[in-house]
Amino acid sequence: MSLSHALITDLYEFSMANGYFETLPRDTEAVFDVFYRTVPDNGSFVVSAGLEQVVEQLRGFHYTKEDIDYLKSLNLFSAEFISYLETMTFDCVVYAIPEGTPVFPRVPILTVKGPLIQCQLLETFVLNLINHQSLIATKSRRINLAAAGRPVMEFGARRAQGPDASVLGARAAVIGGCGSTSNVLSAAKYNIPVAGTMAHAWVQSYPTELEAFEKWAEVYPDNALLLVDTYDVLTSGVPNAIKVFKELRAKGHKKFGIRIDSGDIAKLSRKARKMMDDAGFPEATITASNALNENVIHSLLQEGAPLDSFGVGEQLITSSSSPVLSGVFKLAALKIGDGEWQPKIKLSNSKEKITLPGEKKAYRLYHKGTRNAFADVIALADEELPEEFVGINMDPMMTETEADLKDFDAELLTQVVVGPRAQSIETDTFKIQKHMYEKLAELPEETQRLLNPDRYPVYLTPALAELQAKMIKDHKL
Amino acid sequence: MSLSHALITDLYEFSMANGYFETLPRDTEAVFDVFYRTVPDNGSFVVSAGLEQVVEQLRGFHYTKEDIDYLKSLNLFSAEFISYLETMTFDCVVYAIPEGTPVFPRVPILTVKGPLIQCQLLETFVLNLINHQSLIATKSRRINLAAAGRPVMEFGARRAQGPDASVLGARAAVIGGCGSTSNVLSAAKYNIPVAGTMAHAWVQSYPTELEAFEKWAEVYPDNALLLVDTYDVLTSGVPNAIKVFKELRAKGHKKFGIRIDSGDIAKLSRKARKMMDDAGFPEATITASNALNENVIHSLLQEGAPLDSFGVGEQLITSSSSPVLSGVFKLAALKIGDGEWQPKIKLSNSKEKITLPGEKKAYRLYHKGTRNAFADVIALADEELPEEFVGINMDPMMTETEADLKDFDAELLTQVVVGPRAQSIETDTFKIQKHMYEKLAELPEETQRLLNPDRYPVYLTPALAELQAKMIKDHKL
Repeated sequence: MSLSHALITDLYEFSMANGYFETLPRDTEAVFDVFYRTVPDNGSFVVSAGLEQVVEQLRGFHYTKEDIDYLKSLNLFSAEFISYLETMTFDCVVYAIPEGTPVFPRVPILTVKGPLIQCQLLETFVLNLINHQSLIATKSRRINLAAAGRPVMEFGARRAQGPDASVLGARAAVIGGCGSTSNVLSAAKYNIPVAGTMAHAWVQSYPTELEAFEKWAEVYPDNALLLVDTYDVLTSGVPNAIKVFKELRAKGHKKFGIRIDSGDIAKLSRKARKMMDDAGFPEATITASNALNENVIHSLLQEGAPLDSFGVGEQLITSSSSPVLSGVFKLAALKIGDGEWQPKIKLSNSKEKITLPGEKKAYRLYHKGTRNAFADVIALADEELPEEFVGINMDPMMTETEADLKDFDAELLTQVVVGPRAQSIETDTFKIQKHMYEKLAELPEETQRLLNPDRYPVYLTPALAELQAKMIKDHKL
Repeated sequence: MSLSHALITDLYEFSMANGYFETLPRDTEAVFDVFYRTVPDNGSFVVSAGLEQVVEQLRGFHYTKEDIDYLKSLNLFSAEFISYLETMTFDCVVYAIPEGTPVFPRVPILTVKGPLIQCQLLETFVLNLINHQSLIATKSRRINLAAAGRPVMEFGARRAQGPDASVLGARAAVIGGCGSTSNVLSAAKYNIPVAGTMAHAWVQSYPTELEAFEKWAEVYPDNALLLVDTYDVLTSGVPNAIKVFKELRAKGHKKFGIRIDSGDIAKLSRKARKMMDDAGFPEATITASNALNENVIHSLLQEGAPLDSFGVGEQLITSSSSPVLSGVFKLAALKIGDGEWQPKIKLSNSKEKITLPGEKKAYRLYHKGTRNAFADVIALADEELPEEFVGINMDPMMTETEADLKDFDAELLTQVVVGPRAQSIETDTFKIQKHMYEKLAELPEETQRLLNPDRYPVYLTPALAELQAKMIKDHKL
């Protein structure tokens, strides 16, 4: 027994839980929503990810003896609360949007309903897992969009923010569209094809570059992706690679290519392509891999650089241009003891930061009889979605404040249930990727653009909008 | 038994190791250096961190049966190599700069010497751990510099890039100067004071804000840091807090204050300060915590905002303005079988990217008889540092290309040894922080500035510079 991941929690979750335990009826229940307000890289949506790890953490959740001893040692909590923790089993219910779904601002990605104390103890780790993986899946979707169908390999383990970030980040990168990872543990755990070539150290370890390439081809005759920039790409790397391709072809091998990891990739790849074509190797591939991101890849391909695949490292695994997804976990409703469910709100001077009260459901609306989505709707959980209604637009950046919504098919977004009434969730990483591509195909194309995508409307039902307006007014009195 | 962290490695490390195993004498040895070229946030140095986790990973390193089964399943490696991995014990030696030391570009933070195959297998996880924690320690130093002695609490768990990033990141934040963390597991593991207050959910869970504050004060009469921005800071939060402070003082309690988490912190804190002072509570503290970083903190304090402490979240735990430290792991020397040690170099069109050949040592030079450092020197490992010599400046951004170095005391930087001849390393996080402050005090003050710090020179000895020049020339022939 030792300290466990159950302690990856902000202290104040325990402090609040202990406080609720001391001052509120024990059977007080709550509803909390996880949502975000701002999309990384000025995109229009986030690709949800991380649910599988939330489910794993909840399954068999308990505090170890060392966890409990540490909590006791803080002298902050009552003995009775500590024994509650010792024997606690989570019986919250979690409603979530399936992994791989494009999710728009303010739509609950995940809703937790259950004992207030337990909900509170979930906050930190649920946010950590969902924020991190959704961030990386979203970045990966952007990079794969730029690569326009060419394979993208996730290569970032050495620059990831710690071991988990490398392993879970590679999983999220595949959800967002990557086809493989260099991370062996992630590949093994999540059944992802594992990819890789050689480092400069290999080339330096032999008397000459040619000998290094020959030795590689000897050991890996069917995986000869040769790194050509240790000394000089055009005068040394590519000519030596071509010599080795000849030997390989003579022995009947067919899969070979080069990787360029420095210099001007557009210029070098064009010249290398010509050298390989002239030498009779049009099938030899070119992989690029130096400090790539969606913008560099887009610009290389615009320029016509003859690249067949990409290895993307630090800028994907950290989402370096926008490295935080600020998902939050906000109280929406409370039921104290035998009382009624009460909707709850958090006010703010900034309109966008005012929360949506009450337990809710989220829908995606499609033009009737099609799979063309045109809006999302957030409704109160206990209302039937009307066939026709006036949707209230919450987006402070859009001038349209309401819209007549009719002739639609509605699909429930928050449909996966985990917890005591759990469904099994999809854990095949490539099936989740496939789900992402299917859901992307349903969205207006202009919302998917890398630069300045169009905003997609998220409406409230009249009932939810009225409840929010009433609560704002009541608090102001 | 299950898949282990030993697999957190890029595939190509295994591919190269297997290739070396097949094509080079088994007793081939190597020297690899870890160093970086660019400092995050345009600073002048990085605070080294992560060594403790490298040592932990090396201690008792082995592949589990599942790891081995997975590697076999790839059908990439020889059976003989797989059995080598099954029984391998690391006997590399690692020389490293102690954690908490300010390290300048191109100076080896860590050098690995030992069997080539084993060195290669270390690359990915050594870089992952050192890059991540050094990045966060460096950011924390900047934030703590801006806070000018006021306590900074690490609050980022929910926005960290995965579970490890939260736990190891909090440790690194303390190395860089933070005094506490909200992350319970990190606090427990690394003996860090644990900090926290309440969330908006607490305030929302009671009929009124005043009742929420009163209940909190009842449970935590000696830790009443009240969050005042759930409804309105100045008309509701602070007046209610003052009522509770009166009750607490009447009962003999002395430690209370408020936390402001939204709005214009400068304006709100000034008004809140005046309200609390006027009410007779000059001792009530004000903590700020919304989207803070070194620039915001610096500007708040410049404006005279009366803040007593800071809770810093996402911008510290991800180093969001500069979220990657691009440390590299480069081959410096090789000894094939019974042969001599051969220095090795990696060339590049960019002068800065050419590596330093040979096994090396790094020194910090102090003005004789003082603790005022003025330069670092990289020398060949087998040369005695001369008492006086002409240092060659490698920094492409400095016009001074050489300098007469004399009247100095030199101190070895790469002094910690781990591996079979291991010393014990410092693992007390606050002792590492103390070491950081001592080493910072030795550096010229102008190198420590947040904005446009002065560059600090790193010189090569003539012997090392000549070796590099000769090898560049030889490769160009």
